[in-house]
Amino acid sequence: MAKQSKQEFVQHITPREENFSQWYTDVVRFADLMDYTPVRGCMALKPYGNRIWELIREGLDKRFKETGHENVSMPMLIPESLLLKEAEHVEGFAPEVAWVTQGGGEVLQERLAIRPTSETIFCTMFAQWVQSWRDLPMKYNQWCSVMRWEKTTRPFLRTAEFWWQEGHTVHATAEEAQEETLLMLEVYREFLENVLAIPVFSGQKSEKEKFAGARATYSVEAMMQDGKALQAGTTHNFGTNFSEPFEIRFQNKEGQLEYVHETSWGVSTRLIGALIMAHGDERGLKLPPGVAPHQAVILPIAAHKGGVMEKCEEAYEQLKAAGVRVKLDDRDYLTPGWKFNEWELKGVPLRLEIGPRDIENGVATYMRRDTFEKGTLPLDRLAEGVKELLEDINRGMFKIADDFRLSRTRDVFNMKELGEQVQIGYARSMWCGKRACEDRIKEEFAATSRNMPFDQTPIAEHCVCCGEEGEKKVMYWAKAY
Amino acid sequence: MAKQSKQEFVQHITPREENFSQWYTDVVRFADLMDYTPVRGCMALKPYGNRIWELIREGLDKRFKETGHENVSMPMLIPESLLLKEAEHVEGFAPEVAWVTQGGGEVLQERLAIRPTSETIFCTMFAQWVQSWRDLPMKYNQWCSVMRWEKTTRPFLRTAEFWWQEGHTVHATAEEAQEETLLMLEVYREFLENVLAIPVFSGQKSEKEKFAGARATYSVEAMMQDGKALQAGTTHNFGTNFSEPFEIRFQNKEGQLEYVHETSWGVSTRLIGALIMAHGDERGLKLPPGVAPHQAVILPIAAHKGGVMEKCEEAYEQLKAAGVRVKLDDRDYLTPGWKFNEWELKGVPLRLEIGPRDIENGVATYMRRDTFEKGTLPLDRLAEGVKELLEDINRGMFKIADDFRLSRTRDVFNMKELGEQVQIGYARSMWCGKRACEDRIKEEFAATSRNMPFDQTPIAEHCVCCGEEGEKKVMYWAKAY
Repeated sequence: MAKQSKQEFVQHITPREENFSQWYTDVVRFADLMDYTPVRGCMALKPYGNRIWELIREGLDKRFKETGHENVSMPMLIPESLLLKEAEHVEGFAPEVAWVTQGGGEVLQERLAIRPTSETIFCTMFAQWVQSWRDLPMKYNQWCSVMRWEKTTRPFLRTAEFWWQEGHTVHATAEEAQEETLLMLEVYREFLENVLAIPVFSGQKSEKEKFAGARATYSVEAMMQDGKALQAGTTHNFGTNFSEPFEIRFQNKEGQLEYVHETSWGVSTRLIGALIMAHGDERGLKLPPGVAPHQAVILPIAAHKGGVMEKCEEAYEQLKAAGVRVKLDDRDYLTPGWKFNEWELKGVPLRLEIGPRDIENGVATYMRRDTFEKGTLPLDRLAEGVKELLEDINRGMFKIADDFRLSRTRDVFNMKELGEQVQIGYARSMWCGKRACEDRIKEEFAATSRNMPFDQTPIAEHCVCCGEEGEKKVMYWAKAY
Repeated sequence: MAKQSKQEFVQHITPREENFSQWYTDVVRFADLMDYTPVRGCMALKPYGNRIWELIREGLDKRFKETGHENVSMPMLIPESLLLKEAEHVEGFAPEVAWVTQGGGEVLQERLAIRPTSETIFCTMFAQWVQSWRDLPMKYNQWCSVMRWEKTTRPFLRTAEFWWQEGHTVHATAEEAQEETLLMLEVYREFLENVLAIPVFSGQKSEKEKFAGARATYSVEAMMQDGKALQAGTTHNFGTNFSEPFEIRFQNKEGQLEYVHETSWGVSTRLIGALIMAHGDERGLKLPPGVAPHQAVILPIAAHKGGVMEKCEEAYEQLKAAGVRVKLDDRDYLTPGWKFNEWELKGVPLRLEIGPRDIENGVATYMRRDTFEKGTLPLDRLAEGVKELLEDINRGMFKIADDFRLSRTRDVFNMKELGEQVQIGYARSMWCGKRACEDRIKEEFAATSRNMPFDQTPIAEHCVCCGEEGEKKVMYWAKAY
């Protein structure tokens, strides 16, 4: 039975090349990350998917605290009048808001929005909390879920409710706010690259693509294996766009009232979608060790034979004591073959087999999920061996993703080249900065401006679209999730 | 200026004896734990209050995982039809639900409740997830906020939105579900007593006071310093009350379909209210080291003198490296006196002063927040000294609270004694088990049945209220939050 089922596992996953979108859906479902619910567009995170999110959260939260941020918890409901205070912001979010109109058996006098994002409630509270320059900066973050009434949804990529963190900070000067905006972009880049093993392009969004209400938006853009871009995180400098309508002012050292300068920044459960599409393969999920719920799984081989379970348990205890997230799969009603497939599908970075022959040789047999490479590790220093392998897997996964990204990124100098390149990846070009060119590129190729890298060394004389000379920007273009 | 302000601090807090309720509100506000928001009945958790909740969360989450539970995330919205499936449950929660009726610019066909609790959505998903006995038990938990449209609210004790955890588990047998219900009650008791230093009474709720839809509810009941009870956590055994209407069935080893047996259990940000009212004093908050955002605060004395700041920083690094949550208060625009008051108000367990004389003697001068006792610790082994003191403070705080609780708990044998005792604390009595007696006690004394202890050794022959003999229960009574 187990062998038949082993076949089934493999058959169920649609090949990436055949239908990338269906492959994604298959992996999400078979790896048991989430489930659909009877609530339109809302998902449930199952234990395995939720644990990945917890590990992302722990890794980021540590970095937020190290950079001087504190967590708070804001109300999930926002009165309509607050949402209306900043004009661009309203326009951006009002169409996709879910409204509470009844509470405790009564019709409410004012509608309350379930937060689509929390700028307006943070601003309301900052206006109460900020008095003097001594109160600044206030660097806050919250972990919560938000709600956007999306028409079409896809697991992790676009759902009505999703989980995220939103940082909100207020500062005494424009310079400090800009520093914060770039600092948090760098925190995201470092986390994405070092922990999620996903290389990214950091840069500034165009006017068209920036956040509703921001003066400047920055993003980290990742490349999925179908060559499409996924915006993995954004940071926004609001300047005084919100502090003016919300009257967030502080008394400076000279006793005068000034408006604060504000930022916000966030990443969401979208990152799980990015992990799947940046690393997954025909066998399923492939998780970087930094956020793998189980970094290594131990499988007893011929578990009924004397000494096998004891050795497996010893190995488990040794790895656990060394801080490795390890799972001992002692289910006796499944064959090793079934388990191999299941843990590959779930993307566990390292498989360890321990059977009678391994014990005779004083080793565990391993298989790396990233390269399928097999080998042995001495049991008496298993923890060191496992830790080295996990680091190597992390580096290896980054390298594969980075090589792929570079192979799918190309400088383009005319619309024909741009149109071809965005079929397979990112195109880098000069751009005149005009909305008309962005619109035309979107219309012709369904590609959008991703971001402008910090290195703005010109690569050509003319805008890739209109051909104009004059002031120009280096811009990345791609189709995007 | 600082000296004047020191006076102000003390004057602001209403004495406990004068008005306990106002004292509570003062401490909440001055210790900067939360703030009111423009959203009716909803609070914002400020960094200090939010950090206490994070530490509570970390401590409990560790225990949940150690007892085999996994976290999930469920949707915040619940369609009305799901909420209506279990009759008692609906009746209990429907009056206090907030309803979403519009989304994305359209009127919804079915109202969606913001979860007041998540039994119905968990049940819906369990019905999809449970197939075979091999899937059981499923032991899940989620950390989230929930919404109950309360008429009157008080910070942490009763608010429209509050943060909590809700465990939901399904089991193959009634025995396992009952074991789980009692195990989680014990996890709560152990955490409350060992980490929050709050002694509790564990026991079973009466029929009248049990959770809407449960077969049996258990609680841990804490005593506040005004003698009133605070229900700090509850666990529920649902039996098959939900699995029948939601059709959560599994195939047993014999191939037959059976209904699962279900539990749920939760604690909330109410615990912060419990911390304040169980431990606080005329100077403000008094936090047990286990959940104190800063376990120790270092205050430089004569900070401008040579070597003082250096020694303070050394001490800070030493404590931090030893895993102590330590704060170095280097604000140079406040006097030590101001800082003394501020950190006492915020309940920091241990104050460390380091000035020129201390440095001469190779010590730090400490003050314990629990007893105000002062002493010195050698600087060269400061971490060991601080850790020992923190443990002693934890024990000491529990002892004080426990002595208080015992001094305010008494066996009562008639209505007169009961009426007197619930003015100052808990009354223990025999009770016939009838709702009529509970109603009468509530009407006459505004006291409610708290719980029936596991030790049911009779203390009298007759029900304290109606005087009937026959089958009786030992019951605790108190006024309650």
